[in-house]
This record gives sequence, C-alpha cells and structure tokens, in this order.
Amino acid sequence: MAPRDVTDVWQRLARSGGDILYLVIDGVGGLPGSDGMTELEAADTPYLDSLADKSVCGLLEPIGPGVTPGSGPGHLALFGYDPLRYTVGRGILAALGVDFDLRPGDVAARINYASMDNGVVTDRRAGRISTSTNQRLCDLIRRGVDLDMDGDVYVQPVKEHRALLVLRGPDLHGDIMDTDPQMTGQPPRSPRARSQQSQATADLVAMFVEQVNEVLADEAANTVLLRGFDTYEPWPTLEERYGLHGVCMAQYPMYRGVSRLVGMDVHEPEIALDDYATVVQGYRDSHDFYFLHVKPTDSRGEDGDFDAKVDAIERADELIPGLLELDPDVFVVTADHSTPAAMATHSWHPVPVLIHAGHARRDNVQAFSEAACLHGGLGIRPGLHLMGLALAHAGRLEKYGA
Amino acid sequence: MAPRDVTDVWQRLARSGGDILYLVIDGVGGLPGSDGMTELEAADTPYLDSLADKSVCGLLEPIGPGVTPGSGPGHLALFGYDPLRYTVGRGILAALGVDFDLRPGDVAARINYASMDNGVVTDRRAGRISTSTNQRLCDLIRRGVDLDMDGDVYVQPVKEHRALLVLRGPDLHGDIMDTDPQMTGQPPRSPRARSQQSQATADLVAMFVEQVNEVLADEAANTVLLRGFDTYEPWPTLEERYGLHGVCMAQYPMYRGVSRLVGMDVHEPEIALDDYATVVQGYRDSHDFYFLHVKPTDSRGEDGDFDAKVDAIERADELIPGLLELDPDVFVVTADHSTPAAMATHSWHPVPVLIHAGHARRDNVQAFSEAACLHGGLGIRPGLHLMGLALAHAGRLEKYGA
Repeated sequence: MAPRDVTDVWQRLARSGGDILYLVIDGVGGLPGSDGMTELEAADTPYLDSLADKSVCGLLEPIGPGVTPGSGPGHLALFGYDPLRYTVGRGILAALGVDFDLRPGDVAARINYASMDNGVVTDRRAGRISTSTNQRLCDLIRRGVDLDMDGDVYVQPVKEHRALLVLRGPDLHGDIMDTDPQMTGQPPRSPRARSQQSQATADLVAMFVEQVNEVLADEAANTVLLRGFDTYEPWPTLEERYGLHGVCMAQYPMYRGVSRLVGMDVHEPEIALDDYATVVQGYRDSHDFYFLHVKPTDSRGEDGDFDAKVDAIERADELIPGLLELDPDVFVVTADHSTPAAMATHSWHPVPVLIHAGHARRDNVQAFSEAACLHGGLGIRPGLHLMGLALAHAGRLEKYGA
Repeated sequence: MAPRDVTDVWQRLARSGGDILYLVIDGVGGLPGSDGMTELEAADTPYLDSLADKSVCGLLEPIGPGVTPGSGPGHLALFGYDPLRYTVGRGILAALGVDFDLRPGDVAARINYASMDNGVVTDRRAGRISTSTNQRLCDLIRRGVDLDMDGDVYVQPVKEHRALLVLRGPDLHGDIMDTDPQMTGQPPRSPRARSQQSQATADLVAMFVEQVNEVLADEAANTVLLRGFDTYEPWPTLEERYGLHGVCMAQYPMYRGVSRLVGMDVHEPEIALDDYATVVQGYRDSHDFYFLHVKPTDSRGEDGDFDAKVDAIERADELIPGLLELDPDVFVVTADHSTPAAMATHSWHPVPVLIHAGHARRDNVQAFSEAACLHGGLGIRPGLHLMGLALAHAGRLEKYGA
C-alpha cells in the first residue's frame, strides 16, 4: 500500500539504533525588542551557540505556513505525528491538561460551572468562581452523583470555572452535542447523541446533569455546561511507529499528556530543570528517546516580558553542558512554536533547530538564533520533518528501495 | 480532475521545447573527512565550479527528510516520478539489475540456488556457489525444464547463488507467496497464489520447481528458492508524462533498468565515460532528454575510500567541457543520493544540484559543493522538484491557468 505521507515511510523503515534526546525550549523563537535583537539574540547563550557551531542547524515551521500552533499540535509535529492528521478533541485536551490518566474508550468533556435561574442560564461562568470553589463543587458532585452505569464517573477541577468530566465504562461513545447554549437567557441544551451508538452515553450524561442540578441547587454555580465531548481512541505509539521507547520530563501536565498520547512513559514526580540530566541517565538502559520540556521561556513570552524571557533562555542554556555529558547519539534542541514577547502569545514564526550527531553535515552557523539558523544546512522546513531526520542521524532508518 | 501532485500539473502543461541533459554523479554528496572538507570540497573541480558560477544551484533531498534512497527511488525522483507513488517490486528490480528486457505482464521472481536433503533445506545459499556455477546451473535448467504453457520461461544468472526467473505468456499474475522458508531444516514452501487470478501462474511455478529439482538432482545446489514474485505493469513513460524522448547512458544494469521503467531508450553497448559526449551528439536529432550516469563516485564512497572518491569526482569533472560543447538547452548536474565515504553507504543527506540554462536565475554560488550550494537560488528542496524545473528552463511547460 502506498504510504500516506513520509512519516509512513519512516514507520516502514524503522529499525533499532542510537538514542535521541530532544530538548524543547518552549516558545523560544521570538521577535526583535527595542534594541533590534530577538530574545535569543539578546540572551547570553555560550553553550547553545557552541553546540550550534558543532551541529547542523535550520528553522522549523511547526505546523505550516502562517499556522500558530497550540502546544499539542506543536509537539505532535516534533514527535513525527502530522498534526493535520492526528487531531485531539477538546475534551481529551482538557484531560491531558490535568494529568488525567485517560484509558481507551473513555468519554471526556469540558465542564463550565454556570449560574441558572428559572431554567435559564444567567452566567455561563458563574461569576468566574475561584479554583478553590471549583474544587469544592467537584467534591460535592463526586459525593452526590450516582449514575446507574457499569463504570465510573470522574469530575476533576481545572481552573476557575472550568472542570473536566470523564465517563469510563463499556461501550461508551462521545459523539454528543454540547449542552452549552453559548449565550445567556437560554436554557442549557439537552445532551443530544449525534449517532445511534452514542445514545446510551447521552442518556447517562442527561442523568448526570439532572443529578448535578440537585446537588448544586443551593450554590451560585448551580449547573454545569458541557462541551467538546470526545471518545479517547489511542494512537499508534512512538514504539509502534518508530520503534522508540520514549520518556518525558516536563513541568506542566499538558506536555506530559501529549507525551502519553504517543505512548511515552512520563517521569514522575515533577523534577527541577537542573535535575533533568541526572534523571535522563537513569532511563538510558530502558529507553532510547528522551523528551525534555522547558516551560518558562514560553510563559515569560506569554507575559510579554522580554527581559524575563531572555533570563529564562539563559537558564535553559545552562542545561546544555550536563546534557552533552550524557553524549546521546542524537541531540536535538528546538521549540514547539515561537512566543515573541512583543506579541505576548504563541506565533507562527519558524523556530530554530539544531541536530548534533556523528553524521550531521555541519554548516557555518555559529549561534543558536533565528537569523543565524536561517543559513543552516537544514534550511526552513516543516516541524514534521524533524523526527525523520533524528531517526536517520541515529541510524534508525533502513534504506528506501534497492 | 484535481492534480494528485505537482508532477500531474507538469504532465498537463508539457509541450515541446529545448533539450535537457542530466549528468547524475552517483553518490557525489558526502561528509567532511579528517581535514574538515567533504569529498566535493577536497576535490579539484575547476569545470564544475565554473559551471556552478554560471548556473542556479541548490540542494536536493532526494526522497524526503531522513530517507536514504536506494538507487531506484533516487533516480525515479529525478525523473519526475514520485518514489512514494511509483514503487518497484523486488522481482522486477532483480530483472532490471541484469538488463533483462521486461515486457508488460511478465512475472518475475528472485531465485536463490539452495541445497536440500531429504526434502529439507540444508543451505539456503548452496554454499554461496560461484557465479560461473550459477551460469552452468541456469543453462541446465533452460535445457531441462519444459513447462506446459503458452509462453516462455527465462532463467538468468545474477551473482553467486542469486538468479532471476521470468515467466512470459498470456494471463500470468505474480501475486504468489515466496517458496523460501527463510530457515534451514524446513522444506521449501509451495508457491501459493494469494489471489484467484494468480492460481494458474502458481501452478506453473510449482511445475517449474518440480522439474528443476529433477534437473539439478546431482548438483550440490539441488533446488531453487523463489522470492519477490511480481507482475511487471509498465508505468506511463517519460514521453507520455512530459513529452520527453529519453536516452540513457550508464555503465551498470540497474540504471539502465530504471531508465527502461520510465520508457527511455538505452544506449548499448556500454561505453566509457569519456565517450559520453560524443555518443550524446548522435542522439540529438531523435531524442531530447539525455541521462548520463556516472557510477565510480558512489562505488568509492561505498568502499569508504575518501581519497578514491575524490579522484572519481575529479574524473567526473573532466567530463564537463565536452558536455558543455554540446550546448544543451538545459544542463543539470546532480546526484541520486549522497554516499559519504565516512559512512561507506548511501545516506539521507541532501545532494548538490545545478541547472545551467539560458533563463536560469543565477545566484552567487561559485563552487559545486554541499556548503556552497546551500546558499543557491534553488534552496533545499525535494528531488522530485528537479524535473519540473528542468522542463521549465527548457521552455517545455505551458502557463498554468490564464
């Protein structure tokens, strides 16, 4: 059968080989600040620059031209999963974002706590209740709701008025319409099944909402609006696709969740960035793909704080010597997207990438920055290309054809 | 109908125009040796460098990111056939590799001469018999085997214990399972049809094996194991796709075979590299696409012999003046893949390319090397792009739309 895209070719050619370390410095790409330099150019990054000098460099366009990646798709591309082909439902994303351990067949949805009067929604966010109130309401629901089903109901706070609903049991199907009317002055909608096979699940959801309304009757947030129903269907794992045994080190649940989606193990408990190198060492006998995620660069970019992002980049730079000592066969440094402080949000701009490996064809790039990497041997290319290049440099791909 | 890829667009737009010469210096891309220079950088190539100076240059990624091309797919891409869409079965490849003149509907398979005792395979390679023994056994089979069929059986030696079987006749179908049990101590398998329409062909193959076993009864190699059955279905030719009348000059059967696959004529007998230019001249009235293949660069790379590959590049460089005198409308120099001496095998690294033509938009590249071409006007792009660019520079593509 003809391959659907080049990732299918890699899958067919995959064999065992060297190990691969990905250091993803989230949102590291930027735009010039007042002095005309980007955050990466303003930062003092002797280790990254020295590594770039000994590597093949380039720029990655994470998803496609002009497309600003969310954290999920940005990472999926880096892992060799075409983000246009592998999409994640909002309910599933919500679960990933709180470290919820999804199982195949689980149905997940987002919860908004809301206020209702005489059967009509009066505030879709219940006055943006605090996270601690959210936790208390979730506890009430857990104690008070008892569905007539062969399985379990999970209700988990996220933040402010947002929570997560997961139904687990045999034969559940999440093809169900939102109950959020998207405006006040309307009653919540019934959870309507969009397919025959989702009817029984929709009935359970209706029963859930009815019981919640009783449990929360005396609260300001006296109902729930449900959105983004989805059934969790596991994807082929990194091991199945590329023969990689992956492990994730990340300080935020979203990144651990995306790693789980592609079948990686996740190191727990959370560790400090400075401990990454030591902890990776412990996985070298059992794993051959190490995904290390650095968050503060993105967070400070989202804050719109140029100088704080520069600081965060300099702290990421200090991780390099320890990681280099591990001497992985392939050492990749890149990002899942740009987060220019000037925009205070994710952006579509390409991100620098370097591949340090024995058979990397080195170029003349001597700094890890947007402008320098533009002249690198990898050129500008889709983020999806990275995994194939990493596998090749690790000796993990057979020849294509004779 | 929407084009499936850009090659379908070229096909639709193709018209007559100037002539195109491809000089494919097999495996010419490399990696730095001990002195930090690649083979191309270490070689003294005044003619290629001067030509690069007057051309538009770039790098081709033959198949895709990280994908190491076999010779077949690498060339198919250069000829404008997507190698993920046009795949060649192993039996067909074996036929191409010995210059066998396949016809549509032929069924081809690889033969391994093997040793059998009491119906059980004892050596899958019959002690790696010599090629001359192989030839003698093929003669015995040709004389001794007589299938009850309306057609012909071809048995042709390849090398050592490997040979080729081709069945030619009406209504043959090669959807047949291997007879090679892949291990000793097992009997050879029966040639089982995987489809109803292949049943009659499978019966012929069974009869073939039975008669071979009688013919070879007194030999050490007393049976054959068959693998990679395939039916030869011709592809649309270069003429049908792009209106090109192609002719191939190559010193190895594999490259002549791939040329035949896309409907090129093949110059025979084999000629010396130094005679390429003279021989091309003789084809200019009848043809407009000349594919000239240079093998030693790849062979010395596969030997892992950096200095010998440098020598082979310098000899290829000496071909340039004679070819330039022909003054083809479009003169392309590139490779089907890299073969770094440092790796002693094909690799995924991009290969330099130059297009010399009247309307080429020249760049500042002044040398034909990996690093120099990185900054060329063609950028880094898939090998599949080359044919469209060559056609365009030859004035052979209509405008797309009004």
